[in-house]
Amino acid sequence: MRDMAGSREGAAIVPSVARAARILELLASAPEGMTLSEVARALGLPPSSALAICTTLRQAGLAHRTPERRYMLGPGILALAERYTRGGLPALFMRACRDALPDARETVVLAVREWHEVVYLAQRPGNRPLAVNYHLGMRLPAHTTASGKAALSTVSDAEVREIYSLPSSSGVDVDLLIEDLRKTRDRGYAIDDEETAPGMVCLGVPITVPGASTTTAAVAVSLVKSTVDDEVLSEYVGVMRALAETLSTDPSPAE
Amino acid sequence: MRDMAGSREGAAIVPSVARAARILELLASAPEGMTLSEVARALGLPPSSALAICTTLRQAGLAHRTPERRYMLGPGILALAERYTRGGLPALFMRACRDALPDARETVVLAVREWHEVVYLAQRPGNRPLAVNYHLGMRLPAHTTASGKAALSTVSDAEVREIYSLPSSSGVDVDLLIEDLRKTRDRGYAIDDEETAPGMVCLGVPITVPGASTTTAAVAVSLVKSTVDDEVLSEYVGVMRALAETLSTDPSPAE
Repeated sequence: MRDMAGSREGAAIVPSVARAARILELLASAPEGMTLSEVARALGLPPSSALAICTTLRQAGLAHRTPERRYMLGPGILALAERYTRGGLPALFMRACRDALPDARETVVLAVREWHEVVYLAQRPGNRPLAVNYHLGMRLPAHTTASGKAALSTVSDAEVREIYSLPSSSGVDVDLLIEDLRKTRDRGYAIDDEETAPGMVCLGVPITVPGASTTTAAVAVSLVKSTVDDEVLSEYVGVMRALAETLSTDPSPAE
Repeated sequence: MRDMAGSREGAAIVPSVARAARILELLASAPEGMTLSEVARALGLPPSSALAICTTLRQAGLAHRTPERRYMLGPGILALAERYTRGGLPALFMRACRDALPDARETVVLAVREWHEVVYLAQRPGNRPLAVNYHLGMRLPAHTTASGKAALSTVSDAEVREIYSLPSSSGVDVDLLIEDLRKTRDRGYAIDDEETAPGMVCLGVPITVPGASTTTAAVAVSLVKSTVDDEVLSEYVGVMRALAETLSTDPSPAE
Protein backbone atom coordinates (compact mmCIF):
# COMPACT_ATOMS: atom_id res chain seq x y z
CA MET A 1 0.00 0.00 0.00
CA ARG A 2 3.05 2.16 0.18
CA ASP A 3 2.51 3.99 -3.11
CA MET A 4 -1.17 4.78 -2.55
CA ALA A 5 -2.82 7.93 -1.34
CA GLY A 6 -6.39 8.41 -0.17
CA SER A 7 -8.74 10.36 -2.47
CA ARG A 8 -11.56 12.62 -1.41
CA GLU A 9 -14.06 9.80 -1.30
CA GLY A 10 -11.75 7.56 0.63
CA ALA A 11 -10.80 5.26 -2.28
CA ALA A 12 -7.11 4.77 -2.83
CA ILE A 13 -5.50 5.96 -6.03
CA VAL A 14 -1.95 5.31 -7.20
CA PRO A 15 -0.04 8.55 -7.88
CA SER A 16 2.48 7.01 -10.28
CA VAL A 17 -0.33 5.43 -12.36
CA ALA A 18 -2.16 8.77 -12.43
CA ARG A 19 1.10 10.38 -13.64
CA ALA A 20 1.51 7.69 -16.31
CA ALA A 21 -2.02 8.38 -17.59
CA ARG A 22 -1.28 12.11 -17.56
CA ILE A 23 1.90 11.48 -19.59
CA LEU A 24 -0.10 9.51 -22.19
CA GLU A 25 -2.48 12.48 -22.48
CA LEU A 26 0.44 14.90 -22.82
CA LEU A 27 2.05 12.78 -25.53
CA ALA A 28 -1.32 12.54 -27.32
CA SER A 29 -1.39 16.31 -27.60
CA ALA A 30 2.21 16.54 -28.87
CA PRO A 31 2.33 15.06 -32.40
CA GLU A 32 6.05 15.90 -32.64
CA GLY A 33 6.78 14.21 -29.33
CA MET A 34 8.22 15.57 -26.09
CA THR A 35 11.64 15.47 -24.52
CA LEU A 36 12.04 13.97 -21.09
CA SER A 37 12.57 17.40 -19.56
CA GLU A 38 9.38 18.71 -21.17
CA VAL A 39 7.47 15.79 -19.68
CA ALA A 40 9.08 16.28 -16.27
CA ARG A 41 8.35 20.01 -16.31
CA ALA A 42 4.70 19.54 -17.33
CA LEU A 43 4.16 17.16 -14.43
CA GLY A 44 6.34 18.97 -11.91
CA LEU A 45 8.43 15.84 -11.42
CA PRO A 46 12.16 15.21 -11.10
CA PRO A 47 13.52 13.99 -14.49
CA SER A 48 14.51 10.66 -12.93
CA SER A 49 10.87 9.94 -11.97
CA ALA A 50 9.61 11.01 -15.40
CA LEU A 51 12.23 8.77 -17.04
CA ALA A 52 11.17 5.79 -14.94
CA ILE A 53 7.49 6.19 -15.89
CA CYS A 54 8.30 6.80 -19.59
CA THR A 55 10.59 3.75 -19.66
CA THR A 56 7.85 1.60 -18.13
CA LEU A 57 5.31 2.89 -20.68
CA ARG A 58 7.78 2.08 -23.48
CA GLN A 59 8.25 -1.46 -22.22
CA ALA A 60 4.47 -1.87 -22.35
CA GLY A 61 4.33 -0.57 -25.94
CA LEU A 62 2.27 2.45 -24.86
CA ALA A 63 5.05 4.99 -25.48
CA HIS A 64 7.76 5.23 -28.11
CA ARG A 65 11.12 7.00 -28.02
CA THR A 66 12.57 8.36 -31.23
CA PRO A 67 16.31 8.23 -31.98
CA GLU A 68 16.34 11.95 -31.01
CA ARG A 69 15.01 10.90 -27.60
CA ARG A 70 11.57 12.42 -28.02
CA TYR A 71 8.70 10.51 -26.44
CA MET A 72 5.48 9.82 -28.37
CA LEU A 73 2.49 7.54 -27.98
CA GLY A 74 3.39 3.94 -28.88
CA PRO A 75 1.66 1.43 -31.16
CA GLY A 76 0.27 -0.51 -28.18
CA ILE A 77 -2.42 2.20 -28.04
CA LEU A 78 -3.74 0.98 -31.42
CA ALA A 79 -3.87 -2.63 -30.29
CA LEU A 80 -5.86 -1.63 -27.18
CA ALA A 81 -8.23 0.52 -29.24
CA GLU A 82 -8.96 -2.31 -31.64
CA ARG A 83 -9.87 -4.60 -28.76
CA TYR A 84 -11.99 -1.88 -27.19
CA THR A 85 -14.14 -1.33 -30.29
CA ARG A 86 -14.41 -5.03 -31.10
CA GLY A 87 -15.13 -6.20 -27.58
CA GLY A 88 -15.85 -4.06 -24.60
CA LEU A 89 -17.76 -1.12 -26.00
CA PRO A 90 -20.38 -3.08 -27.99
CA ALA A 91 -20.91 -5.45 -25.04
CA LEU A 92 -21.42 -2.50 -22.66
CA PHE A 93 -23.81 -0.89 -25.12
CA MET A 94 -26.00 -3.98 -25.51
CA ARG A 95 -26.20 -4.40 -21.75
CA ALA A 96 -26.97 -0.72 -21.18
CA CYS A 97 -29.76 -0.90 -23.78
CA ARG A 98 -31.25 -3.94 -22.05
CA ASP A 99 -31.18 -2.14 -18.68
CA ALA A 100 -32.06 1.40 -19.70
CA LEU A 101 -34.44 0.94 -22.66
CA PRO A 102 -36.96 -1.74 -21.76
CA ASP A 103 -39.25 -0.26 -24.41
CA ALA A 104 -37.56 -1.47 -27.58
CA ARG A 105 -39.61 0.58 -30.04
CA GLU A 106 -36.87 2.52 -31.80
CA THR A 107 -33.50 1.44 -33.21
CA VAL A 108 -30.54 2.59 -31.14
CA VAL A 109 -26.97 2.36 -32.42
CA LEU A 110 -23.41 2.66 -31.18
CA ALA A 111 -20.90 4.15 -33.61
CA VAL A 112 -17.30 5.29 -33.64
CA ARG A 113 -16.02 8.08 -35.81
CA GLU A 114 -13.01 7.26 -37.97
CA TRP A 115 -11.77 10.29 -39.85
CA HIS A 116 -14.79 11.66 -41.76
CA GLU A 117 -16.88 8.50 -41.46
CA VAL A 118 -18.76 6.64 -38.76
CA VAL A 119 -18.64 2.87 -38.35
CA TYR A 120 -21.59 1.15 -36.69
CA LEU A 121 -20.36 -1.18 -33.95
CA ALA A 122 -23.62 -2.34 -32.38
CA GLN A 123 -27.36 -1.88 -32.68
CA ARG A 124 -30.38 -2.63 -30.54
CA PRO A 125 -32.99 -2.98 -33.31
CA GLY A 126 -36.38 -1.35 -32.82
CA ASN A 127 -39.47 -3.54 -32.97
CA ARG A 128 -41.93 -1.15 -34.61
CA PRO A 129 -42.81 -1.91 -38.25
CA LEU A 130 -40.84 0.96 -39.77
CA ALA A 131 -37.75 0.59 -37.56
CA VAL A 132 -34.42 1.16 -39.30
CA ASN A 133 -31.91 -1.67 -39.63
CA TYR A 134 -28.19 -0.91 -39.56
CA HIS A 135 -25.52 -3.32 -40.72
CA LEU A 136 -22.69 -3.74 -38.26
CA GLY A 137 -19.46 -2.52 -39.77
CA MET A 138 -21.41 -0.25 -42.12
CA ARG A 139 -19.83 3.13 -42.79
CA LEU A 140 -21.67 6.39 -43.36
CA PRO A 141 -20.38 9.95 -43.74
CA ALA A 142 -19.91 11.56 -40.32
CA HIS A 143 -21.15 14.99 -41.41
CA THR A 144 -24.70 13.81 -42.24
CA THR A 145 -25.30 11.33 -39.42
CA ALA A 146 -26.40 12.03 -35.85
CA SER A 147 -23.67 9.88 -34.33
CA GLY A 148 -21.02 11.40 -36.61
CA LYS A 149 -22.04 14.96 -35.83
CA ALA A 150 -22.21 14.15 -32.11
CA ALA A 151 -18.63 12.82 -32.19
CA LEU A 152 -17.42 15.71 -34.39
CA SER A 153 -18.99 18.24 -32.01
CA THR A 154 -16.28 17.39 -29.46
CA VAL A 155 -13.52 18.32 -31.91
CA SER A 156 -12.11 21.84 -32.44
CA ASP A 157 -13.01 23.80 -35.58
CA ALA A 158 -9.37 23.56 -36.69
CA GLU A 159 -9.42 19.79 -36.38
CA VAL A 160 -12.69 19.58 -38.33
CA ARG A 161 -11.01 21.55 -41.15
CA GLU A 162 -8.03 19.20 -41.03
CA ILE A 163 -10.24 16.07 -41.19
CA TYR A 164 -12.13 17.48 -44.18
CA SER A 165 -8.95 18.45 -46.02
CA LEU A 166 -8.41 14.77 -46.90
CA PRO A 167 -8.93 14.07 -50.61
CA SER A 168 -11.34 11.24 -49.71
CA SER A 169 -13.64 13.70 -47.90
CA SER A 170 -13.95 16.23 -50.71
CA GLY A 171 -17.32 17.74 -51.56
CA VAL A 172 -18.26 18.58 -47.96
CA ASP A 173 -19.09 22.23 -47.17
CA VAL A 174 -16.89 22.58 -44.08
CA ASP A 175 -18.23 26.03 -43.10
CA LEU A 176 -21.78 24.71 -43.05
CA LEU A 177 -20.66 21.67 -41.05
CA ILE A 178 -18.85 23.83 -38.49
CA GLU A 179 -21.99 25.95 -38.10
CA ASP A 180 -24.03 22.77 -37.54
CA LEU A 181 -21.50 21.47 -34.99
CA ARG A 182 -21.74 24.75 -33.05
CA LYS A 183 -25.51 24.31 -32.79
CA THR A 184 -24.91 20.69 -31.77
CA ARG A 185 -22.61 21.80 -28.96
CA ASP A 186 -25.15 24.39 -27.73
CA ARG A 187 -28.01 21.88 -27.76
CA GLY A 188 -25.93 19.04 -26.28
CA TYR A 189 -27.10 16.59 -28.95
CA ALA A 190 -26.83 16.18 -32.73
CA ILE A 191 -29.69 15.97 -35.21
CA ASP A 192 -29.78 14.22 -38.58
CA ASP A 193 -32.98 15.66 -40.06
CA GLU A 194 -33.72 13.46 -43.10
CA GLU A 195 -30.06 13.71 -44.17
CA THR A 196 -29.57 9.93 -44.16
CA ALA A 197 -33.06 8.81 -45.22
CA PRO A 198 -36.29 10.63 -46.09
CA GLY A 199 -38.75 10.66 -43.19
CA MET A 200 -36.05 9.72 -40.67
CA VAL A 201 -34.82 11.90 -37.81
CA CYS A 202 -31.89 10.74 -35.69
CA LEU A 203 -30.59 12.11 -32.38
CA GLY A 204 -26.96 11.54 -31.38
CA VAL A 205 -25.08 12.10 -28.13
CA PRO A 206 -21.29 11.76 -27.76
CA ILE A 207 -19.75 9.40 -25.24
CA THR A 208 -17.56 11.58 -23.07
CA VAL A 209 -14.22 10.86 -21.52
CA PRO A 210 -13.10 12.95 -18.57
CA GLY A 211 -9.81 14.61 -19.36
CA ALA A 212 -9.85 13.80 -23.09
CA SER A 213 -10.40 16.76 -25.34
CA THR A 214 -12.10 14.72 -28.07
CA THR A 215 -14.22 11.63 -28.14
CA THR A 216 -14.74 9.37 -31.10
CA ALA A 217 -17.80 7.38 -30.06
CA ALA A 218 -21.50 8.24 -29.89
CA VAL A 219 -24.96 6.70 -29.49
CA ALA A 220 -27.91 7.60 -31.71
CA VAL A 221 -31.60 6.76 -32.07
CA SER A 222 -33.60 6.77 -35.33
CA LEU A 223 -37.19 8.07 -35.26
CA VAL A 224 -39.92 8.47 -37.87
CA LYS A 225 -40.09 12.21 -38.42
CA SER A 226 -43.90 12.37 -38.56
CA THR A 227 -44.12 10.88 -35.05
CA VAL A 228 -41.73 13.39 -33.49
CA ASP A 229 -43.13 16.37 -31.58
CA ASP A 230 -41.43 18.41 -28.85
CA GLU A 231 -42.44 15.94 -26.16
CA VAL A 232 -41.13 12.87 -28.01
CA LEU A 233 -37.95 14.75 -28.86
CA SER A 234 -37.20 15.74 -25.29
CA GLU A 235 -38.03 12.24 -24.05
CA TYR A 236 -35.52 10.65 -26.45
CA VAL A 237 -32.90 13.28 -25.79
CA GLY A 238 -33.16 12.28 -22.13
CA VAL A 239 -32.94 8.57 -22.94
CA MET A 240 -29.91 9.01 -25.23
CA ARG A 241 -28.14 11.21 -22.69
CA ALA A 242 -28.65 8.59 -20.01
CA LEU A 243 -27.32 5.89 -22.33
CA ALA A 244 -24.26 7.97 -23.28
CA GLU A 245 -23.62 8.64 -19.61
CA THR A 246 -23.65 4.92 -18.81
CA LEU A 247 -21.08 4.33 -21.56
CA SER A 248 -18.93 7.33 -20.66
CA THR A 249 -16.24 6.85 -18.10
CA ASP A 250 -17.35 7.53 -14.60
CA PRO A 251 -14.50 9.45 -13.00
CA SER A 252 -15.74 9.02 -9.42
CA PRO A 253 -13.18 7.19 -7.33
CA ALA A 254 -15.71 4.89 -5.51
CA GLU A 255 -16.02 2.12 -3.87
CA MET B 1 11.99 7.52 -6.17
CA ARG B 2 10.36 5.41 -3.50
CA ASP B 3 8.21 3.31 -5.85
CA MET B 4 10.94 2.53 -8.39
CA ALA B 5 13.01 -0.57 -8.82
CA GLY B 6 16.14 -1.05 -10.90
CA SER B 7 15.85 -3.09 -14.11
CA ARG B 8 18.47 -5.37 -15.62
CA GLU B 9 20.07 -2.57 -17.60
CA GLY B 10 20.06 -0.20 -14.65
CA ALA B 11 17.16 1.97 -15.81
CA ALA B 12 14.42 2.45 -13.27
CA ILE B 13 10.94 1.19 -13.97
CA VAL B 14 7.82 1.83 -11.91
CA PRO B 15 6.16 -1.40 -10.77
CA SER B 16 2.70 0.12 -10.29
CA VAL B 17 2.78 1.60 -13.83
CA ALA B 18 3.88 -1.77 -15.24
CA ARG B 19 0.96 -3.35 -13.36
CA ALA B 20 -1.43 -0.73 -14.75
CA ALA B 21 -0.25 -1.50 -18.30
CA ARG B 22 -0.64 -5.23 -17.61
CA ILE B 23 -4.22 -4.59 -16.37
CA LEU B 24 -5.05 -2.72 -19.60
CA GLU B 25 -3.78 -5.71 -21.59
CA LEU B 26 -5.82 -8.11 -19.45
CA LEU B 27 -8.97 -6.02 -19.90
CA ALA B 28 -8.30 -5.87 -23.65
CA SER B 29 -8.42 -9.65 -23.81
CA ALA B 30 -11.64 -9.88 -21.74
CA PRO B 31 -14.51 -8.48 -23.84
CA GLU B 32 -16.99 -9.27 -21.05
CA GLY B 33 -14.86 -7.49 -18.49
CA MET B 34 -13.17 -8.78 -15.34
CA THR B 35 -14.05 -8.60 -11.69
CA LEU B 36 -11.62 -7.01 -9.27
CA SER B 37 -10.71 -10.40 -7.81
CA GLU B 38 -9.99 -11.78 -11.29
CA VAL B 39 -7.67 -8.83 -11.96
CA ALA B 40 -5.99 -9.23 -8.56
CA ARG B 41 -5.52 -12.97 -9.07
CA ALA B 42 -4.08 -12.55 -12.59
CA LEU B 43 -1.48 -10.11 -11.28
CA GLY B 44 -0.82 -11.84 -7.98
CA LEU B 45 -1.75 -8.67 -6.12
CA PRO B 46 -3.82 -8.00 -3.00
CA PRO B 47 -7.33 -6.86 -4.04
CA SER B 48 -6.74 -3.46 -2.37
CA SER B 49 -3.77 -2.76 -4.67
CA ALA B 50 -5.69 -3.93 -7.76
CA LEU B 51 -8.61 -1.71 -6.73
CA ALA B 52 -6.35 1.33 -6.36
CA ILE B 53 -4.83 0.85 -9.83
CA CYS B 54 -8.23 0.16 -11.45
CA THR B 55 -9.72 3.24 -9.77
CA THR B 56 -6.87 5.39 -11.05
CA LEU B 57 -7.28 4.00 -14.57
CA ARG B 58 -11.02 4.76 -14.38
CA GLN B 59 -10.36 8.34 -13.33
CA ALA B 60 -8.13 8.71 -16.38
CA GLY B 61 -10.85 7.32 -18.69
CA LEU B 62 -8.71 4.30 -19.58
CA ALA B 63 -10.87 1.79 -17.70
CA HIS B 64 -14.61 1.52 -17.16
CA ARG B 65 -16.59 -0.22 -14.42
CA THR B 66 -20.00 -1.66 -15.25
CA PRO B 67 -22.90 -1.52 -12.78
CA GLU B 68 -22.13 -5.20 -12.06
CA ARG B 69 -18.63 -4.09 -11.02
CA ARG B 70 -16.81 -5.64 -13.95
CA TYR B 71 -13.82 -3.72 -15.28
CA MET B 72 -13.37 -3.10 -19.02
CA LEU B 73 -11.23 -0.84 -21.18
CA GLY B 74 -12.53 2.74 -21.12
CA PRO B 75 -13.29 5.18 -23.94
CA GLY B 76 -10.12 7.18 -23.25
CA ILE B 77 -8.32 4.43 -25.22
CA LEU B 78 -10.18 5.56 -28.36
CA ALA B 79 -9.24 9.20 -27.86
CA LEU B 80 -5.55 8.25 -27.48
CA ALA B 81 -5.69 6.03 -30.57
CA GLU B 82 -7.16 8.78 -32.68
CA ARG B 83 -4.36 11.12 -31.69
CA TYR B 84 -1.80 8.41 -32.31
CA THR B 85 -2.88 7.77 -35.90
CA ARG B 86 -3.39 11.45 -36.71
CA GLY B 87 -0.20 12.70 -35.12
CA GLY B 88 2.63 10.64 -33.81
CA LEU B 89 2.75 7.65 -36.10
CA PRO B 90 2.76 9.53 -39.46
CA ALA B 91 5.38 11.96 -38.12
CA LEU B 92 7.60 9.09 -36.98
CA PHE B 93 7.16 7.38 -40.33
CA MET B 94 8.16 10.43 -42.38
CA ARG B 95 11.23 10.95 -40.23
CA ALA B 96 12.22 7.27 -40.39
CA CYS B 97 11.89 7.35 -44.21
CA ARG B 98 14.13 10.41 -44.39
CA ASP B 99 16.77 8.73 -42.22
CA ALA B 100 16.56 5.14 -43.44
CA LEU B 101 15.68 5.50 -47.13
CA PRO B 102 17.91 8.17 -48.64
CA ASP B 103 17.24 6.59 -52.06
CA ALA B 104 13.67 7.71 -52.71
CA ARG B 105 13.02 5.57 -55.79
CA GLU B 106 9.98 3.62 -54.63
CA THR B 107 6.79 4.70 -52.88
CA VAL B 108 6.61 3.63 -49.24
CA VAL B 109 3.40 3.88 -47.22
CA LEU B 110 2.19 3.65 -43.64
CA ALA B 111 -1.24 2.13 -43.12
CA VAL B 112 -3.46 1.02 -40.25
CA ARG B 113 -5.92 -1.81 -40.51
CA GLU B 114 -9.48 -1.00 -39.49
CA TRP B 115 -11.71 -4.08 -39.59
CA HIS B 116 -11.32 -5.55 -43.09
CA GLU B 117 -9.83 -2.42 -44.66
CA VAL B 118 -6.58 -0.50 -44.52
CA VAL B 119 -6.39 3.29 -44.28
CA TYR B 120 -3.30 5.01 -45.63
CA LEU B 121 -1.93 7.44 -43.04
CA ALA B 122 1.29 8.62 -44.68
CA GLN B 123 3.37 8.09 -47.80
CA ARG B 124 6.90 8.88 -48.89
CA PRO B 125 6.32 9.10 -52.65
CA GLY B 126 8.80 7.44 -54.98
CA ASN B 127 10.56 9.60 -57.58
CA ARG B 128 10.83 7.14 -60.46
CA PRO B 129 8.49 7.80 -63.39
CA LEU B 130 6.12 4.89 -62.72
CA ALA B 131 5.93 5.37 -58.91
CA VAL B 132 2.52 4.79 -57.35
CA ASN B 133 0.69 7.62 -55.66
CA TYR B 134 -1.55 6.93 -52.66
CA HIS B 135 -4.15 9.33 -51.34
CA LEU B 136 -3.95 9.85 -47.60
CA GLY B 137 -7.11 8.62 -45.95
CA MET B 138 -7.71 6.26 -48.87
CA ARG B 139 -9.15 2.87 -47.93
CA LEU B 140 -8.41 -0.41 -49.67
CA PRO B 141 -9.46 -3.98 -48.79
CA ALA B 142 -7.03 -5.47 -46.26
CA HIS B 143 -7.07 -8.95 -47.80
CA THR B 144 -5.55 -7.86 -51.14
CA THR B 145 -2.99 -5.30 -49.95
CA ALA B 146 0.51 -5.89 -48.60
CA SER B 147 -0.02 -3.65 -45.57
CA GLY B 148 -3.42 -5.21 -44.83
CA LYS B 149 -2.12 -8.76 -45.08
CA ALA B 150 0.91 -7.83 -42.95
CA ALA B 151 -1.37 -6.47 -40.21
CA LEU B 152 -3.80 -9.40 -40.51
CA SER B 153 -0.92 -11.88 -40.24
CA THR B 154 -0.58 -10.92 -36.54
CA VAL B 155 -4.20 -11.88 -35.84
CA SER B 156 -5.44 -15.40 -34.96
CA ASP B 157 -7.34 -17.45 -37.55
CA ALA B 158 -10.45 -17.20 -35.35
CA GLU B 159 -10.23 -13.41 -35.32
CA VAL B 160 -9.77 -13.32 -39.10
CA ARG B 161 -12.99 -15.35 -39.44
CA GLU B 162 -14.76 -12.95 -37.09
CA ILE B 163 -13.58 -9.88 -39.02
CA TYR B 164 -14.75 -11.39 -42.31
CA SER B 165 -18.15 -12.38 -40.91
CA LEU B 166 -19.23 -8.72 -41.13
CA PRO B 167 -21.85 -8.14 -43.85
CA SER B 168 -19.72 -5.33 -45.27
CA SER B 169 -16.83 -7.74 -45.91
CA SER B 170 -18.80 -10.39 -47.79
CA GLY B 171 -17.36 -11.96 -50.94
CA VAL B 172 -13.95 -12.70 -49.44
CA ASP B 173 -12.75 -16.33 -49.48
CA VAL B 174 -11.66 -16.55 -45.84
CA ASP B 175 -10.02 -19.98 -46.18
CA LEU B 176 -7.83 -18.73 -49.01
CA LEU B 177 -6.98 -15.61 -46.99
CA ILE B 178 -6.03 -17.65 -43.91
CA GLU B 179 -3.76 -19.81 -46.09
CA ASP B 180 -2.11 -16.63 -47.46
CA LEU B 181 -1.67 -15.23 -43.93
CA ARG B 182 0.06 -18.45 -42.83
CA LYS B 183 2.55 -18.06 -45.66
CA THR B 184 2.95 -14.41 -44.68
CA ARG B 185 3.78 -15.39 -41.09
CA ASP B 186 6.33 -17.97 -42.26
CA ARG B 187 8.01 -15.50 -44.63
CA GLY B 188 7.87 -12.59 -42.15
CA TYR B 189 6.45 -10.24 -44.78
CA ALA B 190 3.29 -9.96 -46.90
CA ILE B 191 3.09 -9.85 -50.71
CA ASP B 192 0.46 -8.20 -52.88
CA ASP B 193 1.29 -9.71 -56.28
CA GLU B 194 -0.68 -7.61 -58.79
CA GLU B 195 -3.78 -7.85 -56.56
CA THR B 196 -4.14 -4.07 -56.27
CA ALA B 197 -2.84 -3.03 -59.70
CA PRO B 198 -1.49 -4.90 -62.74
CA GLY B 199 2.30 -4.87 -62.90
CA MET B 200 2.61 -3.83 -59.25
CA VAL B 201 4.13 -5.92 -56.45
CA CYS B 202 3.99 -4.68 -52.86
CA LEU B 203 5.83 -5.93 -49.77
CA GLY B 204 4.36 -5.27 -46.32
CA VAL B 205 5.79 -5.71 -42.82
CA PRO B 206 3.73 -5.33 -39.62
CA ILE B 207 4.72 -2.87 -36.92
CA THR B 208 5.15 -4.95 -33.79
CA VAL B 209 4.30 -4.14 -30.21
CA PRO B 210 5.95 -6.13 -27.44
CA GLY B 211 3.32 -7.80 -25.28
CA ALA B 212 0.41 -7.07 -27.62
CA SER B 213 -0.99 -10.10 -29.37
CA THR B 214 -2.10 -8.16 -32.44
CA THR B 215 -0.92 -5.09 -34.25
CA THR B 216 -2.97 -2.97 -36.59
CA ALA B 217 -0.30 -0.97 -38.41
CA ALA B 218 2.12 -1.87 -41.19
CA VAL B 219 4.54 -0.38 -43.70
CA ALA B 220 4.62 -1.36 -47.37
CA VAL B 221 6.60 -0.58 -50.53
CA SER B 222 5.28 -0.71 -54.11
CA LEU B 223 7.55 -2.04 -56.86
CA VAL B 224 7.18 -2.55 -60.60
CA LYS B 225 6.91 -6.31 -61.00
CA SER B 226 9.15 -6.51 -64.07
CA THR B 227 12.03 -4.91 -62.12
CA VAL B 228 11.84 -7.35 -59.21
CA ASP B 229 14.23 -10.30 -59.06
CA ASP B 230 15.37 -12.25 -55.98
CA GLU B 231 18.07 -9.71 -55.20
CA VAL B 232 15.75 -6.68 -55.39
CA LEU B 233 13.15 -8.55 -53.35
CA SER B 234 15.52 -9.41 -50.53
CA GLU B 235 16.96 -5.89 -50.52
CA TYR B 236 13.51 -4.34 -50.05
CA VAL B 237 12.44 -6.93 -47.50
CA GLY B 238 15.47 -5.81 -45.48
CA VAL B 239 14.65 -2.13 -45.91
CA MET B 240 10.99 -2.59 -44.92
CA ARG B 241 11.93 -4.71 -41.90
CA ALA B 242 14.32 -2.01 -40.72
CA LEU B 243 11.62 0.63 -41.19
CA ALA B 244 9.03 -1.44 -39.29
CA GLU B 245 11.55 -1.99 -36.53
CA THR B 246 12.13 1.75 -36.15
CA LEU B 247 8.37 2.29 -35.83
CA SER B 248 7.80 -0.64 -33.50
CA THR B 249 8.14 -0.07 -29.81
CA ASP B 250 11.61 -0.72 -28.51
CA PRO B 251 11.15 -2.56 -25.23
CA SER B 252 14.71 -2.05 -24.02
CA PRO B 253 14.79 -0.12 -20.76
CA ALA B 254 17.75 2.19 -21.74
CA GLU B 255 19.16 5.03 -21.08
